[in-house]
Amino acid sequence: MSELDAAATPQTEDRPLLGTLLHQGVYRIVMQRPERMNALSRPMMAALSAELTRAAEDPAIRVVLIGAEGKVFCAGHDLKELTAARAEADGGKATYQAIMKQCADLMQQIVRCPKPVIAVVTGVATAAGCQLVASCDLALATDTATFCTPGVNIGLFCSTPMVALSRNASPKQAMEMLLTGESIDASTAKDFGLINRIIPRDYLEQVVQKYAEAIASKSAHTLKIGKEAFYRQIEMPLDKAYDYAAGVMVENMMARDAEEGISAFLKKRKPEWSDS
Amino acid sequence: MSELDAAATPQTEDRPLLGTLLHQGVYRIVMQRPERMNALSRPMMAALSAELTRAAEDPAIRVVLIGAEGKVFCAGHDLKELTAARAEADGGKATYQAIMKQCADLMQQIVRCPKPVIAVVTGVATAAGCQLVASCDLALATDTATFCTPGVNIGLFCSTPMVALSRNASPKQAMEMLLTGESIDASTAKDFGLINRIIPRDYLEQVVQKYAEAIASKSAHTLKIGKEAFYRQIEMPLDKAYDYAAGVMVENMMARDAEEGISAFLKKRKPEWSDS
Amino acid sequence: MSELDAAATPQTEDRPLLGTLLHQGVYRIVMQRPERMNALSRPMMAALSAELTRAAEDPAIRVVLIGAEGKVFCAGHDLKELTAARAEADGGKATYQAIMKQCADLMQQIVRCPKPVIAVVTGVATAAGCQLVASCDLALATDTATFCTPGVNIGLFCSTPMVALSRNASPKQAMEMLLTGESIDASTAKDFGLINRIIPRDYLEQVVQKYAEAIASKSAHTLKIGKEAFYRQIEMPLDKAYDYAAGVMVENMMARDAEEGISAFLKKRKPEWSDS
Repeated sequence: MSELDAAATPQTEDRPLLGTLLHQGVYRIVMQRPERMNALSRPMMAALSAELTRAAEDPAIRVVLIGAEGKVFCAGHDLKELTAARAEADGGKATYQAIMKQCADLMQQIVRCPKPVIAVVTGVATAAGCQLVASCDLALATDTATFCTPGVNIGLFCSTPMVALSRNASPKQAMEMLLTGESIDASTAKDFGLINRIIPRDYLEQVVQKYAEAIASKSAHTLKIGKEAFYRQIEMPLDKAYDYAAGVMVENMMARDAEEGISAFLKKRKPEWSDS
Repeated sequence: MSELDAAATPQTEDRPLLGTLLHQGVYRIVMQRPERMNALSRPMMAALSAELTRAAEDPAIRVVLIGAEGKVFCAGHDLKELTAARAEADGGKATYQAIMKQCADLMQQIVRCPKPVIAVVTGVATAAGCQLVASCDLALATDTATFCTPGVNIGLFCSTPMVALSRNASPKQAMEMLLTGESIDASTAKDFGLINRIIPRDYLEQVVQKYAEAIASKSAHTLKIGKEAFYRQIEMPLDKAYDYAAGVMVENMMARDAEEGISAFLKKRKPEWSDS
Repeated sequence: MSELDAAATPQTEDRPLLGTLLHQGVYRIVMQRPERMNALSRPMMAALSAELTRAAEDPAIRVVLIGAEGKVFCAGHDLKELTAARAEADGGKATYQAIMKQCADLMQQIVRCPKPVIAVVTGVATAAGCQLVASCDLALATDTATFCTPGVNIGLFCSTPMVALSRNASPKQAMEMLLTGESIDASTAKDFGLINRIIPRDYLEQVVQKYAEAIASKSAHTLKIGKEAFYRQIEMPLDKAYDYAAGVMVENMMARDAEEGISAFLKKRKPEWSDS
């Protein structure tokens, strides 16, 4: 589990769904079902949710990475799981409601997590797998990563993935992915605002860790305040956003870490942050 | 009428305002007033609206293309029509209200049309002509296409065009077009999110038809569900958007085409969609 | 004060905080505290606000430029001013509330100014300095300009800057700037939608003046109507935005400058605008 992208790892159902590793405040969560294309089955979603809860609560964790083993980052919902539910008395409706709610809750848990969450995409991200990338605060990818929302090809429009996708890409960019179901490469995904940086595979480990550690070195309290404020203000009209954000700034100024950070900056020394 | 871009076609006022052609589920609507720069006169808007109504209702139509003959895709409102109304008792006010409402209704009809609507831009798209492109779900253009909102040059700010434009481009990009009135080329329009693809003129016919047929081959029911959900969720806050979209996904799962599509995918066969 | 970028100007505290120059309807406001990195101290914010009020009221002013002397366009809040307030009985809270309100009001004054406001960035724009750029209607920059929101490095998240930034850049682009605190260059800022154009330093004077004069030559009444409508409609759902914008178009049509502008256009002569 030392690598985000470990295609050579032996694949057995006995291994946990997720591998995790904490190093220098950076918590790696790696989906370990490459033989199932890391599909968001109900157990996989539950496992991701549990790790995000842990990440939110553990003060030693300051930044979260979500990566995956194998050539498919995440293939979205588990179609066999969905199809099996059709045999139920209501044709699967109650199960589908539960699965869609679980998935929407998971994506919003990422947004509400007080720690920055970064997707590390080394392969194919489709449907809810693309949504997972779009839902993260930041996303890094290798040039081998691709992205698509192909639900339209199987009669199931990617309606929940588009909630996250259309908050990253512009309407026509998102619409083209949704209506054609075709893949875009990493470079196009960067143009669309779906990912932040493209990293050569040979340097992935070191670049990702360094990038994440740089964020992990900031005040956790400040990151928490800022991330929460970002997603709240973005949904407000301008005047309300400013009223709210000005209040957040004052609260932030009164906190210990701002006093310490500004003082350290003016005195040209390294700041000592509080733990949370 | 076999070509989207038929500059050589004889130009007579006797021809209908619009030419139409249905082929493989792709319905081409072509504005045929190049000598009037395909201006959105009241009759032209009424004709477009009638064709969109037909496209919405006819199950044989699965994708709509809007193109134009001549070097000007569409020059926006008919300035002579606007000026003529000044002679009316109220200085034209009632007529202007009617024209602006008709135009706003037309643009929203595109958005509400249950079939994907694709602009095919081979020339100059100005003012409400640029708005027409911005209002479509997707837009394809040749490298000879240009785009501008030049109302500011004649004292009439492109206020309704900017409603659509500012939902494609970012604020400063839209503002530059609106405040300077200057044209942007196809490459810049792609950067701004106003168009999806630039196609060499020599290959226009075949690429556009192939692109549209790929979308026409999807389930019409699924496209309808997805397009409607896209524009509804994009105006909601994140939590409401997820509640809504999760409900859409469940409804979509319970429909025949998703069952057929997923089944076909798992069995590696071609799906058979229902008619609508 | 004839240059937007006058690094060689002697630096004395005796000079006014702002230099101003009106030429051909273009009003240049230049921050003149390079030795203080043009920080947005309370007096600097008050001075900018006073100039914006003047610009709004003076019919001779048709376009506003905001530039700065020195290598730093604007370093954001004055950290020494913020730190000094900690000695107050309430730990600075009332002062911070007043400063944050003053800053938010200033940024919204730019948005509400009836004249177009253009940032001219020749150096480093950080924190509230980056917010100042983001708040302008348009922004021009040299290739030496850089942009960052580094508050996270000193424990004070750039929460008010992000209100403006996240209305220019896409969420992941804005988040990367906010969470890493790292600088982006002018080219990246253009990709992010934070600036409109990059101008070689040697041509800055002439290009900026020409660009601004082109806008200044439009009808001031029309610019005012259009700018106000832009920021109002962008916060509305589509149907409400169209209802509102259609009303604005009718009002605009009934105004003298539209009648004059359309008439001049149809007669191929130059329009004569009213004064305001």
